[in-house]
Amino acid sequence: MGLIGIAVALGLLAIVYGLVTGRQVLRAPTGTDRMREIAAAIQEGAQAYLRRQYTTIAVVGAGMALLVLLLLGPISAGGFVIGAMLSGAAGFIGMIISVRANLRTAAAAGEGLQQGLTLAFRSGAITGMLVAGLALLSIAVFFGLLVGVFGLNPDDRQVVDALVALAFGASLISIFARLGGGIFTKAADVGADLVGKVEAGIPEDDPRNPAVIADNVGDNVGDCAGMAADLFETYVVTVGATMVLTALLVRDIGDLLLPLMSLPLLIGGVCIVTSIIGTYAVRLGGGTKVMLAMYKGFGLTALLSIPAIWFAINLALGDMNAVIGGDALLRGTQDVMPGQPIDTEGMAAQVRPFTGWALFACCMVGLAITAAIIWITEYYTGTNYRPVRSIAKASETGHGTNVIQGLAISLEATALPTLLIVAGIIGAYEIAGLIGIAYAATAMLALAGMVVALDAYGPVTDNAGGIAEMAGLDATVRARTDALDAVGNTTKAVTKGYAIGSAGLAALVLFAAYTTDLTEFFPGLDVDFSLENPYVIVGLLLGALLPYLFGAMGMTAVGRAAGDVVQDVRAQFHADPGIMAGTTKPDYARTVDLVTKAAIKEMILPSLLPVLAPPAVYFGITAVAGQQNGFAALGALLLGVIVSGLFVALSMTSGGGAWDNAKKFIEDGNHGGKGSEAHKAAVTGDTVGDPYKDTAGPAINPMIKITNIVALLLLAALAT
Amino acid sequence: MGLIGIAVALGLLAIVYGLVTGRQVLRAPTGTDRMREIAAAIQEGAQAYLRRQYTTIAVVGAGMALLVLLLLGPISAGGFVIGAMLSGAAGFIGMIISVRANLRTAAAAGEGLQQGLTLAFRSGAITGMLVAGLALLSIAVFFGLLVGVFGLNPDDRQVVDALVALAFGASLISIFARLGGGIFTKAADVGADLVGKVEAGIPEDDPRNPAVIADNVGDNVGDCAGMAADLFETYVVTVGATMVLTALLVRDIGDLLLPLMSLPLLIGGVCIVTSIIGTYAVRLGGGTKVMLAMYKGFGLTALLSIPAIWFAINLALGDMNAVIGGDALLRGTQDVMPGQPIDTEGMAAQVRPFTGWALFACCMVGLAITAAIIWITEYYTGTNYRPVRSIAKASETGHGTNVIQGLAISLEATALPTLLIVAGIIGAYEIAGLIGIAYAATAMLALAGMVVALDAYGPVTDNAGGIAEMAGLDATVRARTDALDAVGNTTKAVTKGYAIGSAGLAALVLFAAYTTDLTEFFPGLDVDFSLENPYVIVGLLLGALLPYLFGAMGMTAVGRAAGDVVQDVRAQFHADPGIMAGTTKPDYARTVDLVTKAAIKEMILPSLLPVLAPPAVYFGITAVAGQQNGFAALGALLLGVIVSGLFVALSMTSGGGAWDNAKKFIEDGNHGGKGSEAHKAAVTGDTVGDPYKDTAGPAINPMIKITNIVALLLLAALAT
Repeated sequence: MGLIGIAVALGLLAIVYGLVTGRQVLRAPTGTDRMREIAAAIQEGAQAYLRRQYTTIAVVGAGMALLVLLLLGPISAGGFVIGAMLSGAAGFIGMIISVRANLRTAAAAGEGLQQGLTLAFRSGAITGMLVAGLALLSIAVFFGLLVGVFGLNPDDRQVVDALVALAFGASLISIFARLGGGIFTKAADVGADLVGKVEAGIPEDDPRNPAVIADNVGDNVGDCAGMAADLFETYVVTVGATMVLTALLVRDIGDLLLPLMSLPLLIGGVCIVTSIIGTYAVRLGGGTKVMLAMYKGFGLTALLSIPAIWFAINLALGDMNAVIGGDALLRGTQDVMPGQPIDTEGMAAQVRPFTGWALFACCMVGLAITAAIIWITEYYTGTNYRPVRSIAKASETGHGTNVIQGLAISLEATALPTLLIVAGIIGAYEIAGLIGIAYAATAMLALAGMVVALDAYGPVTDNAGGIAEMAGLDATVRARTDALDAVGNTTKAVTKGYAIGSAGLAALVLFAAYTTDLTEFFPGLDVDFSLENPYVIVGLLLGALLPYLFGAMGMTAVGRAAGDVVQDVRAQFHADPGIMAGTTKPDYARTVDLVTKAAIKEMILPSLLPVLAPPAVYFGITAVAGQQNGFAALGALLLGVIVSGLFVALSMTSGGGAWDNAKKFIEDGNHGGKGSEAHKAAVTGDTVGDPYKDTAGPAINPMIKITNIVALLLLAALAT
Repeated sequence: MGLIGIAVALGLLAIVYGLVTGRQVLRAPTGTDRMREIAAAIQEGAQAYLRRQYTTIAVVGAGMALLVLLLLGPISAGGFVIGAMLSGAAGFIGMIISVRANLRTAAAAGEGLQQGLTLAFRSGAITGMLVAGLALLSIAVFFGLLVGVFGLNPDDRQVVDALVALAFGASLISIFARLGGGIFTKAADVGADLVGKVEAGIPEDDPRNPAVIADNVGDNVGDCAGMAADLFETYVVTVGATMVLTALLVRDIGDLLLPLMSLPLLIGGVCIVTSIIGTYAVRLGGGTKVMLAMYKGFGLTALLSIPAIWFAINLALGDMNAVIGGDALLRGTQDVMPGQPIDTEGMAAQVRPFTGWALFACCMVGLAITAAIIWITEYYTGTNYRPVRSIAKASETGHGTNVIQGLAISLEATALPTLLIVAGIIGAYEIAGLIGIAYAATAMLALAGMVVALDAYGPVTDNAGGIAEMAGLDATVRARTDALDAVGNTTKAVTKGYAIGSAGLAALVLFAAYTTDLTEFFPGLDVDFSLENPYVIVGLLLGALLPYLFGAMGMTAVGRAAGDVVQDVRAQFHADPGIMAGTTKPDYARTVDLVTKAAIKEMILPSLLPVLAPPAVYFGITAVAGQQNGFAALGALLLGVIVSGLFVALSMTSGGGAWDNAKKFIEDGNHGGKGSEAHKAAVTGDTVGDPYKDTAGPAINPMIKITNIVALLLLAALAT
């Protein structure tokens, strides 16, 4: 329990950081009465939405918990409930903080850019540390309970299943939160823009627009709560999958098993410390480059994480040079085809023996990927580089060329991250086999506290800008919040690229868990995962379809709900001309309520797609071509969904960010500035990018995980 | 030579049909002097473009021919040159016919809808039959020469390599033609719309617009010439791959080998007859439903093809019930891993013995897929169904919602075709193994004459509408050409879905050829194509990237070239105010020339992507992880490119067609009709859809083939 205890302590440290910093933020000035009034409306709407969302999810979650209980027993059901509850809690916390930080950031921006940045980033850091801390605690405490209190072996089947069920709970809640929140935020945003900016010709965040509060509520429930639940899920799945893979692949290493399975938790723990230190380095230092300030904080965290990870590995393994595994100690996935001569070369590569140094090197690969993803995302979504500027320039020739160029950038933006992930896979695999890939992913997620801090900062500044506008603050305040928000568009895209990139690595780990489980549960079955088996192609194609179908549903939902908003706002304008005259207040709550209902209704079906697809494919193909091919197609489905989902998600999130900042770039006075034809075209691009980057794109990450996890649970259920 | 002789004779029949019907079309009235003048300008521009395009391609082609000569010898180089020349010829013929049919269709539409339909469809049928006939002749004559005159065995390695080289020549030219033509047509179209409709407020095809001739030239060089070269390529690759797979997989069947290898040619031949008969059934029959008339023609062809294919198989095999293959007669792909016990169950499935009836059943699967693709495409792009209408409705709330809904439909439109292809793969494979999949694809392509006829009809009516507008013909004429053109948008989308769908099947056949070749060339090498090998994942990811990168390049090229057009037109308007006043004629040729240069410059780099990617991946991975993994990653690349390319291509082509017809639906008087805000939004969607459906989307089909074929040639080159 020593190592697990340290991990729990470091997880608690993150919670303490969150509470202490939270007090600081709450003590900050809240500005004028008008600001407080607006913020209260946003807060009320966000809480009402989340309450209703969680009530709906609770019904689905309870049904699923019952299913897990029946199929896999009480321990797994317990894991599922813990994962689900804490994923929900992470989302709720993200919202709670951001609805309190928004007006304080607006007030602080009145004093200066640095003050605004500090307050917004601090509040982001609270969310970041609480997400990472809760995620770490959920696994560490649960694992500690099972091993320490219940006395189970670390690699006991019940422990493995329970960890997978915990991840399932986290993922299931997070897909609802991501998608429901994403639909809410973008339906409100798109609806408000269409009817406000485009039809009525009033500026963004104008208080006369009845959808304006809904729009600001959306930032909090989608970009904050949804994102927090999503990253909680990513953390739990990645760290959990590394532990599960260790339990499944590395056998007979005696007393080393518990430290080795605890190591991912310890790495997560020490990186919470480095993340906390890094948050204090986010400072402008006299300049005005907000992104540079962010880089300073991230850079410090990444640099400090290098010795910290070395420390964690050294502490867990005792000797960085000792070889773990060896001919007798490793159980290879080659066992999948019994009766066939073991291909020792393949085995050596897949589950080759490794040292502490090898794991350390793989963690460095993960850190390097994270840093590179941040830079690539900044390149594709920052206002200083070719992609965003090319979209801004294309806006001069109209709406059509803006969208064409934006789509071209979306497609192109997949290239560098893919090459990066491929390089990461090859590098980690050559160093330490599959375990190496798992550790690269774990090291990526270990920085989640810092990365979520960067992201959660975005919606706070976005909201602060809205409040500044609605409360009629000085134009300089709005200029400062706009400067902060432009960087927010990039940092929001970073987290999505980071989450989906880590999913690319985690998917390999989950697939390895799938094939290993298959051998264990169905030892006599000779499943052919070769590309020469047409059922593998069938599985790849069906898996590749899922992100497309899911994306289509998400986009349609936003379009439909935004249409409802437009109708409602038009009706309000029509019924009471005093609204446009500014003499009466619109009925904000009515619009919030309408979007709430629409978002919750629309989120159900797409969220169930990844839950239902694995059993449908397995039973369908088994009926036609036998169980062997059913398992082959199901396995291929898991890789098909990542191979296609990676590209769909990357293109949507980068493209959306680029569109948004192309609009910002024009608003900064380029290509004719605000009000020009180019600006109108850029607004169209931004509107198109909205559901891309904030609804469909980010929700693909939990969708991929759920597909994989459901397949693992299906295997376990079929075996019992 | 008997069967090959019949195939050649039936191929010649298609040519005769083309010549005879061509005379009929040329005899039709050409309308007014003004129409002839406009048509002459279009004709001149199209010819000038193609001349220049082919000159450029010839340089690349000559270099590639030299490479093939050096690496694979003179016979393969001969095949490459034949494939390249005839692919080019197919494109040229498509253009020659359409630039002569356009004004005659406009003239015929003056008499009535049926007359316009007949003329436009006849000219499409000429292109269709010439494409199918030339494609059939190229393989049949070449194969006949090698086997009959040179006396090579049908399954001689030189024959196999030469057939692959023939396909390579066809594909290489076709990607240039598709992409160059696609960039031309959409740069001109988008540029003309932006500066004409949007900026100057003049209608589409207004003669005052300097880009109007370039726009009409584009229909001919892109939608006609590019499409014809593309379908020529698809035909040659699919039929050729079936023959190659037969040569590689089915061994020691003695005298039956030549008839079996000739059978795909014979199936192609008899379906030319059924296609010709079907063309005469395309009649309105008193009604006004143009799509229904098309269905009649296709339906008759498909129905007649059932007995025709039975006849072909019976003639080739002599006995529909005789079992071909058996334990001793088949060489399984299981040989890939020598020294390993042969998995007879897997072998039975992959290269199981088959009968004539089994091949017949697989051909029926192919026909059913073709029919279903037509219906699905009509559903997604026709004005009578939910998808197009939902985009039209979304246009009411502005540019942004139009594009969002269009993108949602794009994504959704991939689902049914994917499920269909998956069902086709499973069905054909369960009936006759891999050979069954090859025959399903062959039967699909056997209907190419009819399908190309439906497609080539589209740009002719589009041009006819343009000429009617520019020549100031009566509004009823334009209404008729518009009715014809709306169906053209659907039929154009059909061919693309059909081509990419067949590519989904053909890719499996080409992959099987790849693995079989690998065994033959490197018998000692134990390549692991299992999904458990991370280098397979690496290959899948890199393959999946190619369509995205290719699409990005294509979209960017259109945006850039369209921007040039806008600048040029603005400059012309500025320099001579008489143009807008209608007193002086704009300099059409200058714009044509500008787009020509831009298109040719832009097509080179993306076209080389699929040529260079396979060797880059093979040598790159081999350097890092050894030759085994190099071959594994290369093989996975081939499937990655289809798994991702299928979705990118389907979403782009269906989405683009839906956007186009949503605009048409509004222009028909819905949602406010022409000139309304909804119409403006729909024009934006149409503009966005243009490069989607006519540049990037369709060029993905030859791109997938080239990647596969280059890999096969690389194997052959590495082995020598």
